Amino acid sequence: MPSFGLFTDLYELTMAQVYLKENKTGRAVFSLFVRKLPQNRNFLVSCGLETLLELLENFRFSDEDLLYLKSLGKFSEEFLDFLKEFEFKGSLYAIPEGRVIFQNEPIIQIEADLPTAQILETLVINTIHHQTLIASKAVRCKLASKDKKVVDFGLRRAHSLEGGLWASRACYIAGFDGTSNLMAGKVYGIPVVGTMAHSFVMIFPSEEEAFRAFAKVYPENTIFLIDTYDTLEGAKKVVSLWKEGIRAVGVRIDSGDIQNIAREVRRILDEEGLKEVKIFVSGGLDEVDIDKLLSQDVPVDAFGVGTKVVTSSDSPYLDMAYKLVEYEGKPKVKKSPGKETFPYKRQVYRLYEGSVAKMDKVVKFRDRSEGEPLVEKVLEDGRLLKNLGSVKEARERLLEDLSKLPEDLKKLKKASYRVEILRY
Amino acid sequence: MPSFGLFTDLYELTMAQVYLKENKTGRAVFSLFVRKLPQNRNFLVSCGLETLLELLENFRFSDEDLLYLKSLGKFSEEFLDFLKEFEFKGSLYAIPEGRVIFQNEPIIQIEADLPTAQILETLVINTIHHQTLIASKAVRCKLASKDKKVVDFGLRRAHSLEGGLWASRACYIAGFDGTSNLMAGKVYGIPVVGTMAHSFVMIFPSEEEAFRAFAKVYPENTIFLIDTYDTLEGAKKVVSLWKEGIRAVGVRIDSGDIQNIAREVRRILDEEGLKEVKIFVSGGLDEVDIDKLLSQDVPVDAFGVGTKVVTSSDSPYLDMAYKLVEYEGKPKVKKSPGKETFPYKRQVYRLYEGSVAKMDKVVKFRDRSEGEPLVEKVLEDGRLLKNLGSVKEARERLLEDLSKLPEDLKKLKKASYRVEILRY
Repeated sequence: MPSFGLFTDLYELTMAQVYLKENKTGRAVFSLFVRKLPQNRNFLVSCGLETLLELLENFRFSDEDLLYLKSLGKFSEEFLDFLKEFEFKGSLYAIPEGRVIFQNEPIIQIEADLPTAQILETLVINTIHHQTLIASKAVRCKLASKDKKVVDFGLRRAHSLEGGLWASRACYIAGFDGTSNLMAGKVYGIPVVGTMAHSFVMIFPSEEEAFRAFAKVYPENTIFLIDTYDTLEGAKKVVSLWKEGIRAVGVRIDSGDIQNIAREVRRILDEEGLKEVKIFVSGGLDEVDIDKLLSQDVPVDAFGVGTKVVTSSDSPYLDMAYKLVEYEGKPKVKKSPGKETFPYKRQVYRLYEGSVAKMDKVVKFRDRSEGEPLVEKVLEDGRLLKNLGSVKEARERLLEDLSKLPEDLKKLKKASYRVEILRY
Repeated sequence: MPSFGLFTDLYELTMAQVYLKENKTGRAVFSLFVRKLPQNRNFLVSCGLETLLELLENFRFSDEDLLYLKSLGKFSEEFLDFLKEFEFKGSLYAIPEGRVIFQNEPIIQIEADLPTAQILETLVINTIHHQTLIASKAVRCKLASKDKKVVDFGLRRAHSLEGGLWASRACYIAGFDGTSNLMAGKVYGIPVVGTMAHSFVMIFPSEEEAFRAFAKVYPENTIFLIDTYDTLEGAKKVVSLWKEGIRAVGVRIDSGDIQNIAREVRRILDEEGLKEVKIFVSGGLDEVDIDKLLSQDVPVDAFGVGTKVVTSSDSPYLDMAYKLVEYEGKPKVKKSPGKETFPYKRQVYRLYEGSVAKMDKVVKFRDRSEGEPLVEKVLEDGRLLKNLGSVKEARERLLEDLSKLPEDLKKLKKASYRVEILRY
């Protein structure tokens, strides 16, 4: 494993060095939360914890890293020795992956000596921010697509390869049915899917020959991409191949006026009795497009989404912060305008009315409340306290939470949920 | 080095297997280009080539990868053997990093046997898309900031750690003066910068004590963060410390109404003769904010930008595609509505009037034209033909290009540039 220590902002280390010099090494609690939900999100989905824990385990400074840091001329030998020995031995509290969460709820809380907790800021924000961002976008696509399938084709336009891997993971936790990303298939066991590209069709003398060649190698679950030249003509070729015994399970349309074309394609297929051939659409789609197509009863059976989901394009970041909330048992608050924080390590209680979530209460960690506590202690003295479960379990957790969420929150239209933060 | 082969969409491999079966292994050319510039971009900055070449060198399938692929039940032993031996032995043509580019210009062209060129699609798009996206956003911040300094603080909200590393690289090529990202400092030699966080100030009994403790360890180039409690009071503390001999080089303001507060802070500092103390601002800024502050003569000396730049928030993706343009010497075109492509391997000639770029002509690679050719052959038979130079050289290339760009393109307001694509 490479060392990840340098994935850190310089100031984390300069501050940590001062803390050590000034003996500010008491127990600190930092809390990671989202200040405000983006305009188009009624809730968020917590995601990224397993990734964070893996990186945290390998968050070290190699000799080469230390040489680099030394070259900056800012760090004492004593501090470099501290970094050489760096290893996370603190506690970590988290809302498990796949939970529905809201503003001001502590997704991650790190409790450790102050220099250590400070140094981890960049890593903690980076890993949780990204996957929470993507899962919170992807779940909207999943909800909009109702009982239809949705798969992720986003790797190519994700921000970096790692960004693509994490995005596929987040989409799967959000309920997607598969991914085109082979690395995500291997690493996380996500079902992989794929059809063919326009280049494939173009290589053969004719569209029909391209389809034939493909079906010869993959006689099962074949999906033909039919919009390389003329989509309706493409659909007709699928019909004539069918009559010869080359039976596609679906056709994919990746361009044009999907609403009208899908209807025409459906008509062509149905007229010839190919009712079981599914229509799969892709090409710059997001939850708004999916919702529009389905609300107009456009005959689409599955959606391939990519770019807009893996970049969370309508809101490519969350207003997420990692803030000191407690030091040596004392409350800490920041008062900068618009950026106030709430002190103390916290627990979130979710209150239900029947089986429907009604409100969340964010209270001091040790305070009892009615409702379901969301925050769990995950690491103690750097050791894992419980098995986190697979991505599949996170996915099921989300399904469960969605089943208890007020209906209006699950629609694309803005709706809000009550989160009460106790002030002390 | 880990194997990167699985950072690929499934369909690249399923298609490649058919190509091999059907003996479609002739020389193919794929071209990577942006179909259309985003609304708020007058030009793009080519970026990511060095990253692509490094990954390409390690784009292999490990035994473990092959076992995973085998488990999918889609691939023959013969094809898995092909992947086992996979190594890029083709040619790569590129517009070097740091060049100003426009729509429909071939940033990367891959010439190789068809299965190989197809398999690389996802990798090529992912690496070049992301860095070109970020550099094209960052250069706007740099231009808006005129002679002021701009640094990147974006790692925490970049999409993944690798996304953060690449983003810092792209920002530096775009002309940024530094980064907070230590990994980027180590890997690319980018100057690293940083101040202090609010948590640091909050840990000490008073703001003043925090400043003192920091200056004791870092007596040089000290920048105090003054907005944790009350910004103007913070500025006054900087003045009183100055009188004791604790001489800050700057103050940072990270919140509030920067326009008014920066003026007030400047007044407080100037009244006491601290004219040399710089004002550094940060907090959700992008080029529009920078332009507004400077056009109103707000006394700011340096900008820290992060989230909005490293996510290219106003346009988090480019309409970038990797398309087959030639096969066995014959032109290939796609006719899907709105997604037409232009056939043949291409060269871009930039025509100047005096020292100002006037238009680009995109012609067949072997066709001669007046003007400066932008596309270079970088790899032949998989071997590097020339040293690519450092990020510093890419940065200088951009500076040179910017000096020759029509003035209206360098403003934030929409302006366009003529790109002529020869049709054959």
